[in-house]
Amino acid sequence: MEQSAGADFQRWRLLLAYDGAAFRGFAPQPEVPTVAGALRQALGRTARMSEGPVITCAGRTDAGVHARGQVVHVDLPPIAYDGVGLARALNRQLAPQVVVVRAEMAPPGFDARRSATGRAYRYLVWNAPAPDPLLAAVSWHVRDPLDLVSMRTASDVLLGTHDFRSFCRHRPGGDGSEPIVRRVTRAQWSVDDSPEVHDVRNGGAEGRLLRFDIAAGSFCHQMVRSLVGALVEVGRGRENAAGLMARLRAVSRHRMPDPAPPGGLCLVSVTYDDGS
Amino acid sequence: MEQSAGADFQRWRLLLAYDGAAFRGFAPQPEVPTVAGALRQALGRTARMSEGPVITCAGRTDAGVHARGQVVHVDLPPIAYDGVGLARALNRQLAPQVVVVRAEMAPPGFDARRSATGRAYRYLVWNAPAPDPLLAAVSWHVRDPLDLVSMRTASDVLLGTHDFRSFCRHRPGGDGSEPIVRRVTRAQWSVDDSPEVHDVRNGGAEGRLLRFDIAAGSFCHQMVRSLVGALVEVGRGRENAAGLMARLRAVSRHRMPDPAPPGGLCLVSVTYDDGS
Repeated sequence: MEQSAGADFQRWRLLLAYDGAAFRGFAPQPEVPTVAGALRQALGRTARMSEGPVITCAGRTDAGVHARGQVVHVDLPPIAYDGVGLARALNRQLAPQVVVVRAEMAPPGFDARRSATGRAYRYLVWNAPAPDPLLAAVSWHVRDPLDLVSMRTASDVLLGTHDFRSFCRHRPGGDGSEPIVRRVTRAQWSVDDSPEVHDVRNGGAEGRLLRFDIAAGSFCHQMVRSLVGALVEVGRGRENAAGLMARLRAVSRHRMPDPAPPGGLCLVSVTYDDGS
Repeated sequence: MEQSAGADFQRWRLLLAYDGAAFRGFAPQPEVPTVAGALRQALGRTARMSEGPVITCAGRTDAGVHARGQVVHVDLPPIAYDGVGLARALNRQLAPQVVVVRAEMAPPGFDARRSATGRAYRYLVWNAPAPDPLLAAVSWHVRDPLDLVSMRTASDVLLGTHDFRSFCRHRPGGDGSEPIVRRVTRAQWSVDDSPEVHDVRNGGAEGRLLRFDIAAGSFCHQMVRSLVGALVEVGRGRENAAGLMARLRAVSRHRMPDPAPPGGLCLVSVTYDDGS
């Protein structure tokens, strides 16, 4: 087990879900509530570590972004819990904002970030004249009627391997001149016709809940939100698939539409080579 | 127009949605945030009334209960807005916690409460080993596996006209000796197989989102939550349809299960004789 904190330490793999609105992102920061900060504190208490363990995640999520399938690993000293007991002990401290859906001992060599071969996100757009109070925390309210057909055509442009520099926010210190090549395996819009939406209609309101599913080996910073921001411009008729392709080829963030707000985004799943 | 505040006043009908978690119930109370309090303040500002109008609603919701189809009426002095403009002016002040989905001048004699002929509520139960952070605000997390078949059988007992005293909280001052007869026209459990739930499963968690739809001419206080509390006991196997019928016939709250928590409940729609 590389990166283990000591011979007696055991690597654990945790599956996490969280409400991003309650945190200033995943990565720990002093003095502000973060998912990793909350989890580290709970783990420190449960595993009786004064500092709490270092937490390595499959996909760092920004402030306000939700997760249902985040995977992390941590190295813990021997504890008196099995996976079910550990999850329960952590959930007593963290739920419902953060939930440890499953905890298990990691297989040899497992690294939540490096071993991950794919990530899938979904983005929800509430396309309606009026906002919806019960969807506000998990979706972006767009008032202008969106043309789903042109959004679908434009999304097809993203499939395959491209330099996504135009749609990535530079990490501090970067100048945007490095290629950021990613392989997108899914980029699909659908209409979410769930009972939730029927409730809205039964109540007497109009609206469609649009859902964007995107999967890739990995993503660069703010990539999904930047793509959704551009695709919604397509839906509004201010841009088209050819324009989106030109943006992609320009490898520049110059005059890019604003990224879509974080609350609509959710990390849905992470895949590993062993199929788990 | 009965109850009008003056000859120049116009009665408006508003369709409301709100996030109950943000309020201490619908009815105005001094010093605490309520839906009617927030709406009254916004209406007072928009219609330039120093006090704000009295707000009459179709169904008073308790603290924490949501709505997607609440209907209210208010009497306003002449204003410079049409319905679309009034809704927009109010939403600028209230959204997303409270949303005026539609505003329109009420037909002659309309009274949001007295003219209503039916109300429909839904209750969501997240039946899973672990809570879900994104469903926590709109559902009740029940860990014990629930038997949907027996819950359905027991729900059928509720259909028709009964004295629902066993399932109603007495209003202050009442002693529970008065019959509370209501006609239930729908009482149905279903499994909500929405993309939301697929996200949970894609993430790697288990769970079912159970949905209870109930409709009646009107409801008494805490009736839906009391019924759901009893029906979940049936799902756990601690009670059955015959026991539920005995409770109904006993017309007493003696040893009733706790009412289900308010966050799972939502007022979905109100019907009026004109079919609107």
